[in-house]
Amino acid sequence: MTELVDRPAGRRQRPAPAAAAAQPAVDVAALGEQLLGKWATIRRQARDLAARPELHKIEGLTHTEHRARVFGQLKYLVENESVHRAFPESLGGSDDHGGNIAGFEELVVADPSLQIKAGVQWGLFGSAVMHLGTAEHHAKWLPGIMSLEIPGCFAMTETGHGSDVASIATTATYDPATDEFVVHTPFRAAWKDYIGNAANDGLGAVVFAQLVTLGVNHGVHAFYVDLRDPDTREFLPGIGGEDDGIKGGLNGIDNGRLHFTNVRIPRTNLLNRYGDVDAEGTYSSPIASPGRRFFTMLGTLVQGRVSLDGAAVAASKVALKAAIQYATERRQFNASSHTEEEVLLDYQRHQKRLFTRLATTYAAGFAHEQLLQKFDNVFSGAHDTDEDRQDLETLAAALKPLSTWHALDTLQECREACGGAGFLIENRFASLRADLDVYATFEGDNTVLLQLVAKRLLADYAKEFRSVDFGVLARYVVGQATGTAIHRTGLRQVAQFVADSGSVQKAAIALRDEEGQRALLTDRVQTMVAEAATALRGTGRLSQEKGAALFNRHQNELIEAAQAHAELLQWEAFTDALGDAADPGTRTVLTWLRDLFGLSLIEKNLSWYLMNGRLSMQRGRTVGEYINRLLVKIRPHAVDLVDAFGYGDDHVRAAVGTGAERERQDEARAYFRSQRASGTAPVDEKILLARTAGNRS
Amino acid sequence: MTELVDRPAGRRQRPAPAAAAAQPAVDVAALGEQLLGKWATIRRQARDLAARPELHKIEGLTHTEHRARVFGQLKYLVENESVHRAFPESLGGSDDHGGNIAGFEELVVADPSLQIKAGVQWGLFGSAVMHLGTAEHHAKWLPGIMSLEIPGCFAMTETGHGSDVASIATTATYDPATDEFVVHTPFRAAWKDYIGNAANDGLGAVVFAQLVTLGVNHGVHAFYVDLRDPDTREFLPGIGGEDDGIKGGLNGIDNGRLHFTNVRIPRTNLLNRYGDVDAEGTYSSPIASPGRRFFTMLGTLVQGRVSLDGAAVAASKVALKAAIQYATERRQFNASSHTEEEVLLDYQRHQKRLFTRLATTYAAGFAHEQLLQKFDNVFSGAHDTDEDRQDLETLAAALKPLSTWHALDTLQECREACGGAGFLIENRFASLRADLDVYATFEGDNTVLLQLVAKRLLADYAKEFRSVDFGVLARYVVGQATGTAIHRTGLRQVAQFVADSGSVQKAAIALRDEEGQRALLTDRVQTMVAEAATALRGTGRLSQEKGAALFNRHQNELIEAAQAHAELLQWEAFTDALGDAADPGTRTVLTWLRDLFGLSLIEKNLSWYLMNGRLSMQRGRTVGEYINRLLVKIRPHAVDLVDAFGYGDDHVRAAVGTGAERERQDEARAYFRSQRASGTAPVDEKILLARTAGNRS
Repeated sequence: MTELVDRPAGRRQRPAPAAAAAQPAVDVAALGEQLLGKWATIRRQARDLAARPELHKIEGLTHTEHRARVFGQLKYLVENESVHRAFPESLGGSDDHGGNIAGFEELVVADPSLQIKAGVQWGLFGSAVMHLGTAEHHAKWLPGIMSLEIPGCFAMTETGHGSDVASIATTATYDPATDEFVVHTPFRAAWKDYIGNAANDGLGAVVFAQLVTLGVNHGVHAFYVDLRDPDTREFLPGIGGEDDGIKGGLNGIDNGRLHFTNVRIPRTNLLNRYGDVDAEGTYSSPIASPGRRFFTMLGTLVQGRVSLDGAAVAASKVALKAAIQYATERRQFNASSHTEEEVLLDYQRHQKRLFTRLATTYAAGFAHEQLLQKFDNVFSGAHDTDEDRQDLETLAAALKPLSTWHALDTLQECREACGGAGFLIENRFASLRADLDVYATFEGDNTVLLQLVAKRLLADYAKEFRSVDFGVLARYVVGQATGTAIHRTGLRQVAQFVADSGSVQKAAIALRDEEGQRALLTDRVQTMVAEAATALRGTGRLSQEKGAALFNRHQNELIEAAQAHAELLQWEAFTDALGDAADPGTRTVLTWLRDLFGLSLIEKNLSWYLMNGRLSMQRGRTVGEYINRLLVKIRPHAVDLVDAFGYGDDHVRAAVGTGAERERQDEARAYFRSQRASGTAPVDEKILLARTAGNRS
Repeated sequence: MTELVDRPAGRRQRPAPAAAAAQPAVDVAALGEQLLGKWATIRRQARDLAARPELHKIEGLTHTEHRARVFGQLKYLVENESVHRAFPESLGGSDDHGGNIAGFEELVVADPSLQIKAGVQWGLFGSAVMHLGTAEHHAKWLPGIMSLEIPGCFAMTETGHGSDVASIATTATYDPATDEFVVHTPFRAAWKDYIGNAANDGLGAVVFAQLVTLGVNHGVHAFYVDLRDPDTREFLPGIGGEDDGIKGGLNGIDNGRLHFTNVRIPRTNLLNRYGDVDAEGTYSSPIASPGRRFFTMLGTLVQGRVSLDGAAVAASKVALKAAIQYATERRQFNASSHTEEEVLLDYQRHQKRLFTRLATTYAAGFAHEQLLQKFDNVFSGAHDTDEDRQDLETLAAALKPLSTWHALDTLQECREACGGAGFLIENRFASLRADLDVYATFEGDNTVLLQLVAKRLLADYAKEFRSVDFGVLARYVVGQATGTAIHRTGLRQVAQFVADSGSVQKAAIALRDEEGQRALLTDRVQTMVAEAATALRGTGRLSQEKGAALFNRHQNELIEAAQAHAELLQWEAFTDALGDAADPGTRTVLTWLRDLFGLSLIEKNLSWYLMNGRLSMQRGRTVGEYINRLLVKIRPHAVDLVDAFGYGDDHVRAAVGTGAERERQDEARAYFRSQRASGTAPVDEKILLARTAGNRS
């Protein structure tokens, strides 16, 4: 019962239940430390910073005012030495890639505009110069970028090409006569678009363009281009642009469009780490394959996806802290007595709405920590093989879609769970949701990213069978056919049914068993991939058009397989984390939460498990019941579980999360109690009528 | 092939397919007329108005500027005689309740703030005076309310009580000594909150309070209270308040808080149609039962829910028009050839994202038209029995949650389907979504409304068995037990499986069969209600606390049953509408869309159908396949189906929906074609490498 001893009595909503002695308790401090992860110290520093009013979003500013404020905040970050961790030690950084992202993610709770504008300046613009450029570029531009003397753009996306970067149409054509590249926008669709810092602040830009020299297009490369005169702030000759105007959120960032009309830049402005052009125009690259070269250059962008994954988790945590706190205080409807209304969190539906999202937030958080460590291993050079980079790419492409969609879903559910109060900007749900909306489509559209994951899953699957002889493959095909036969006859389902018959309890144990959940989740991914691979077998022998059509007919299934894979990764990360929870009570509660996550996934895809004979009808019917029992078990620990996130009032900054509602409700109940005690309460007409009817009979 | 002849060639995206002769065509004009429904003329007038720039939302205003603009727009509506249709002819209205709502709904496409502020003034404040007041009140206040001389509030919700209106704590206590009511706020939680017009504009208010006279509380009644001095605009003595500040959306409305400290109003300010107090303080009412009286008074509020249902459908239509138009123009990735990229709408996933929501929008639109006609029948007095009113309440409580959630989901999916462009405010998705967010919780929280529906379903179910003898009830119970037995043995599923064996085709026919869909959807509702009723049987014999706990353990199931019921109503409305489509081609396409709606519902709840033996594994597996086939069938008609909504560019006002993308894509393709033709295109390094490799081998 340390939970009751450790915490101020005023915060506790529920009296200790009769069976309290048997209740496990959450060690909030220890769990909080575990959640902070490997870069706990940096996260704490960043949270201290994010708690300062200077960095907070002020609601209701015009987008012009908001932009100005955020630009000023970027200077504040520089002054507070909080944004240079990834840069080389030689230039005042600390070569700490993981720590840099950890600190960056936490800024989202101050103002997502601030986070993303910092990400544009140092995570994209600066990072491109660092990773794609060489020593001369670093010396020339990084100091100004780091100090914000050169605010800049990462000019990749075009109006006509978002996620398909390989197809951008801006060209940089080498002119040996002048030793210059000519950067050019051939048509309107090739304007750079949605570019942060482009509308106002950007003096320089890393512009991505098709590198053409001696009549050959060597694919997309990055070029440093000066955009504006630092004094007049006017565009330099040949450069033009437009303001993207107001957006659905993130209005502290001046997104805009850029176009180039035969803009000449020195040859040496090519960021030439992975591809160079000599004075004669001869192209050379340390990476022979144009495809691999392209993916290597783009691979440096993965940190954007990694950090959005972390920021999405942080925003979900803040929202759940506010909504769950409020739900323990707010009372509505008096179902169980005439005088006392229930607190919202005692309603089953409210528990399901908030606890399933709490469980997913924990899962996404643990998965993010693994992703961040993987990222750090690659970028620090500790584990930096091609395979490591590919795994990192796939992991980021899998997790970022889930966590960013989850954040939007959680912010909305929390806002609705707080009713009209949730809609007031003072409670921040709507503001955070508006800002995070675009996280679902930038740094890689979520749907496109999941397709990348699906392709990787298919490739791995094909690789598994590439080296085996035909006999094995044939047996595999037979296995598949048998699988189909099982669907047809329902044999497996019937077999399982017989085993379960009359034993709901046994079925429930199997479902809450770790191995049971793992088997179900893993089997689904494997089977979906195998089925898709079978359906797509022979695509290579078809014409490109027919192959594409066949692929398209299975696009939904492929995306669903990728999502199932990503969910499994989250579940595994959550399960790994259980082992790191030393305190038994904490581990017990976390295990319930992990079970809730796993069973919610199984419930969401229950029809698949049933149709494929993985669960009997009988067992399937226990999933919902077991989830409901978990909700009841988790209920007493809900506040501890959100307190462990470690966000204070200066981070949450939601009026509903401050305890004000509890004061109001207590005041109201005290009023009615005293009225009843004094006998001054008016009699309810209904009671009067009931009495009269009683007297009559 | 009239579709190809009727429409400007420039708008057509796809060449006529080879089998074009067999393709049905949509008669866009006729379908558009059908969608306009019974009040087509008024909808057209309202759309003409909504197309005017004077009424459009200007993005980026501060909330203060936005409020001022919307207040001015309300005057414009008065001048254009578009908001008085529901008021009595004697006062210049036209006693047209259905037409009034139809016209009101269309305003959402101009600016949702304008719509809701008009709703506050005339639909809530004015309507309360009209429906709850009597002739003297009408004469005294309605002219000023109609002309906007008296902007006013509908002061019902309190900080501590939202959807549970019966529990509001503001009191109006009769003082026979002065012939006055004393309106009083006993504590902070009883402040009126989220009240439109309260922060600035409201001069008067209809205040809901517990009517207390001679020591008896007669429950919630409505009182007319002057709030501010019309000259100084200061609160009158005893009245205070606060501005709710910026909100997640609808910032053109000045929501605020109000509180009353012993504010005295004349006894005759009680809006006394359903309950009156004489000079001596004696209470009287034409409705003896306090419960029925309360629901009768609140029943006049149903028009708010009706109109939100319609407005949510309108917003969904506008979003789908823009996103589907864009998806026929925007190209991304060249899966099927080296030179031509696919338009987004040819991707299966994109079709599934947009067409399932298109189908739901049609269903919600047809269901709304039935709701509106029901509403008009009741409020015009044509069919105004207690049963009619109860049915209307239930129908509105069922449909409003589904359509408002659907609008948010659709706006978000459309925004994501347009990528980064979707996030720009110029494309309106984010703006509309922000404004419509609160539709999910105001005028009755969606979750609470669905519980009202569930209670009605349970009550109807109980009624069905009330009058039958015990033998029948016993048989019914046996029937239920058999149902359980079927789950246990899987008998029904096995039986169905045997019938389907080896006949996917037959299963598919049954699923796309109207009667097949109806049977599945209806059966699910009936079974869920029966199961819940069985589980809750005997609640009455338990203590109130135990009864509430039992109810709470089934809260999720009850809400899901209510949702299933509402979805069935939408499906039935869509099916009814098929009969009204005279043109065979239109009917064919609409039938595909109805099937898509029905099968999407079945797919969403597939695990239920499987677990309960309603579908075999075999048949279950055909649902997804059949949905995919429907997507392909609907694809050629998608633009016709959104054009039939009848919203022009002045309503949609989304840059992505204007055809600009098509121009950009055409320009880009023309550029590359001409480059290829002239031989000036640089050679792709990949192709060069392939050639070199070819020469070597």
